[in-house]
Amino acid sequence: MERHFDEEMEIIRKKLVEMGGLTEQLISRSIQILVSRDNVLSEDIWPTEPIVNQKQLDIDEECMELLARHQPMATDLRFLVSTLRITGELERIADQAVNITQAALVLIVRPEVKPLIDIPRMATLATEMVKDSLDAFVRKEVQLARAVLSRDDQVDGYKNQIFRELLTYMISDPKTIDRGIELILISRHLERIADHATNVAEDAIYYVEGRDVRHHAEEANLPTGESKPF
Amino acid sequence: MERHFDEEMEIIRKKLVEMGGLTEQLISRSIQILVSRDNVLSEDIWPTEPIVNQKQLDIDEECMELLARHQPMATDLRFLVSTLRITGELERIADQAVNITQAALVLIVRPEVKPLIDIPRMATLATEMVKDSLDAFVRKEVQLARAVLSRDDQVDGYKNQIFRELLTYMISDPKTIDRGIELILISRHLERIADHATNVAEDAIYYVEGRDVRHHAEEANLPTGESKPF
Repeated sequence: MERHFDEEMEIIRKKLVEMGGLTEQLISRSIQILVSRDNVLSEDIWPTEPIVNQKQLDIDEECMELLARHQPMATDLRFLVSTLRITGELERIADQAVNITQAALVLIVRPEVKPLIDIPRMATLATEMVKDSLDAFVRKEVQLARAVLSRDDQVDGYKNQIFRELLTYMISDPKTIDRGIELILISRHLERIADHATNVAEDAIYYVEGRDVRHHAEEANLPTGESKPF
Repeated sequence: MERHFDEEMEIIRKKLVEMGGLTEQLISRSIQILVSRDNVLSEDIWPTEPIVNQKQLDIDEECMELLARHQPMATDLRFLVSTLRITGELERIADQAVNITQAALVLIVRPEVKPLIDIPRMATLATEMVKDSLDAFVRKEVQLARAVLSRDDQVDGYKNQIFRELLTYMISDPKTIDRGIELILISRHLERIADHATNVAEDAIYYVEGRDVRHHAEEANLPTGESKPF
C-alpha cells in the first residue's frame, strides 16, 4: 500500500513537470511570434493550450483520489494540496501565453512601434521564474524558491520601463497608440506570469518547510511545521 | 468527533463569508474613489487588505488541520479543497482592488478624460459575480454558480467597449493618453476580478456535484461524482 502511494506521488510529480514544460514552451513561443513576426509559430500554440488544461484536470483528479484513498499527513498532504494549487497557476500561465499570442498576431501585421528590447528580456525573466519555481517544488530546493521571490523587483522594473518608453512613442506619434497599448498589455501578461511563478515558489517553501510565506509571513520567523500534522 | 468536525466546517464557512464580504467591500470602495474623486475612501482600503490576507492564512490553516486530523472524503473533502482554492481567488480579488485604488488615486488629481459610465457598470457586474459565486458555494446553489459563468460575455463586452471608447479620446487628444491607459488597465483589473469569480463558481459546482466544469468539461455531460471517494 505504502509503496503504491509513493509510486502514485511520483507519477503526479512527473506529470506536473510535463505540464510545466508545456507551459514554458507556450510563453517562449508566444514571444517568439512577436519578435520574429512569424505567425507560423502560433500553429503550435492552439493545440498545446488544451493539453495543458487537460493535464490540470488529470493531475487534480489524481491528487483528489490520493487524498481520499490514502489520507496522507504532513509532507505528503502538503505536496498534494500544493500541487492542486500549482496546476491552477500553470493553467493560468498558459492562458496568459494565449493572450500574448493573440496580441502578437494583431501586432505583427502592422508596422513596428519600436525595436523590442525589454519585452523579450522580461519574457525571459518570467519564463525562468516559472521554470525555477517548479524545479524548486519538485526537487524540494527552498533556496531556489526564495531566489524566485527575490526577482519581483526586476519584474516591476521592466513593467515600469516598458510603460514609460511606450508612452513617449505614443505621445510623439498618436498613430502608434493602439499598438503601444497592446505592447503595454503584453508586459502586464508577463507580469501576471511572474506573479503565478511567485505563487508556485511560495508553495514550494510551504511544501518543504511547512511554513506559509505568503504575505511576507517569513519575516515573522515562524517555526517550521514539521511537528504539525499538516 | 463527527459533531466537532461539522462545527469546524461551519466555522470555516462563516469565515469564508466574512472574507468574501471584505473583498466585495474593497472592490466597491476602490471604484467609489474613482467615481466620487474622493481620496478619503482609500483610508479604509489600506487596513482592510491585510485583514483579507490574514483571513486567507487562517482559513487555509484550518482547512489543512481538518484534512490532516479528520481525513474527510466525498463532499467534505471537496469542500475543504475548494475552500483552499477559493481563499486564493478572494485574496487575488483584494489585490486587484488595491491596484484599482492606486490607479484611481493617480487619476483623481488630474482632469477627467470623460464622464465614467461603463467602468462603474463593469465594477457592479464584477462585484455581483464575486458575491453570487461565493453565495453559490456556501449555500450549495448550483444554478446561481452557472449564472455567474454565463456573465462572462458581458464582461468581455464592457472590456472591448471601454477600450474602443478610450482609444478615440486618446487619439483626438494625446494629452489624455496616460490617463486613458490607466482607465483601460482598471477595466483589465475588473476583468480579472470577474475571472476569479468564475473560478469560485466552478468550485461551487465541483463541490456540490463532484464534476469538474473547468475548461467546459460540462459539455461532455459527465456523471456526477457522488459515487467516487472524492
